Amino acid sequence: MSIEGTKLTLNDLTILGLLLERETGVTGLELEKTIDNRNMRIWTKIGKSSIYFGLKKLEKNNFVSSEAKYYRKNQSKPPIKEKYYKITHEGKNEIEKAIFNILSTHKKIIDPFDIALSFSSWLSPKRKKKAFDLRLKMIKDRKELLQIKFEEFKKPGAYGLDIEGKKDFNPLILKNILIIFSRPLSLVEAEEKWILNNIDDIIQ
Amino acid sequence: MSIEGTKLTLNDLTILGLLLERETGVTGLELEKTIDNRNMRIWTKIGKSSIYFGLKKLEKNNFVSSEAKYYRKNQSKPPIKEKYYKITHEGKNEIEKAIFNILSTHKKIIDPFDIALSFSSWLSPKRKKKAFDLRLKMIKDRKELLQIKFEEFKKPGAYGLDIEGKKDFNPLILKNILIIFSRPLSLVEAEEKWILNNIDDIIQ
Repeated sequence: MSIEGTKLTLNDLTILGLLLERETGVTGLELEKTIDNRNMRIWTKIGKSSIYFGLKKLEKNNFVSSEAKYYRKNQSKPPIKEKYYKITHEGKNEIEKAIFNILSTHKKIIDPFDIALSFSSWLSPKRKKKAFDLRLKMIKDRKELLQIKFEEFKKPGAYGLDIEGKKDFNPLILKNILIIFSRPLSLVEAEEKWILNNIDDIIQ
Repeated sequence: MSIEGTKLTLNDLTILGLLLERETGVTGLELEKTIDNRNMRIWTKIGKSSIYFGLKKLEKNNFVSSEAKYYRKNQSKPPIKEKYYKITHEGKNEIEKAIFNILSTHKKIIDPFDIALSFSSWLSPKRKKKAFDLRLKMIKDRKELLQIKFEEFKKPGAYGLDIEGKKDFNPLILKNILIIFSRPLSLVEAEEKWILNNIDDIIQ
């Protein structure tokens, strides 16, 4: 599904966004590493194969250009080809639109929890208590994971962020990374608080 | 997509849940009205056609049984057939499992907003400000809508809830309805608060 007003999916946006950070060109493998290093899988669904599939599609749409470079690991072996990807002018325009459209639109998110909650009076008090105990435990785990990551990235020199060996890292990026960890954290805290405030009423 | 460990979709769960409230049998039209009266579309995607489609599928799976009743609107015209649906024993077991499984599992929700936010430094400060102004306005509108509905349902005798004319309404249901309005409200408030706390930092 495309982001409103654009030809980009969420995965495309993630890829283009990472290409924007390094205009000198990035390989697919470097993209993979960046996604791992930043723990981006905490808030995206992007997988390995979708990176390569996405790059191909983006290139076909002229949002990305590629250049092959050859290097030898070993003089006795034939050179290895590596593809470097860059975001194009069209790609920059498209991602600008996509970011703006997403940031400016608040969409209701259908959470199955709300629907189950509305029928929860049909569960016995014992089963309700058990369900909420399990849920609170999972919320606590997620909160802790987010807190740990947030603190890790906050440490000065926490440059696991960067692609190995390359130093042309934009400091703005670190700020963005911190901001996006703080948001899921605030929402997960709101969820926990709501349950703790209402659990007695619900379980009755 | 089915709810884990069950054969039910979210729409099936909604339909079965409403059938549970009225074990004497309900027509498709009455289900439609209930969904409207309770403003259930605020937190579900259920549409008119999906009610009838869902009832058919649930009956095929033995989670629902139906009985045809005939009545005459007008003595000079042929009788009209109306189908009354009831939840079966199997249906009750299945919905119990579905409610338990959803309540007990906290899933991360992928919000495109987080992804766009992580790349928001590529927007000009002016565009960022505009995007967040629009977003805050939408959040405010949604908050107000939820608040109004919450207050409406809290009023004693706010029995727009019930299906017209029938009085066998379970008081537990009202409690459940209030609870599910309070939850999206608390989350939307957390979202607004997070933006207001971070907007200066983001827009810079």
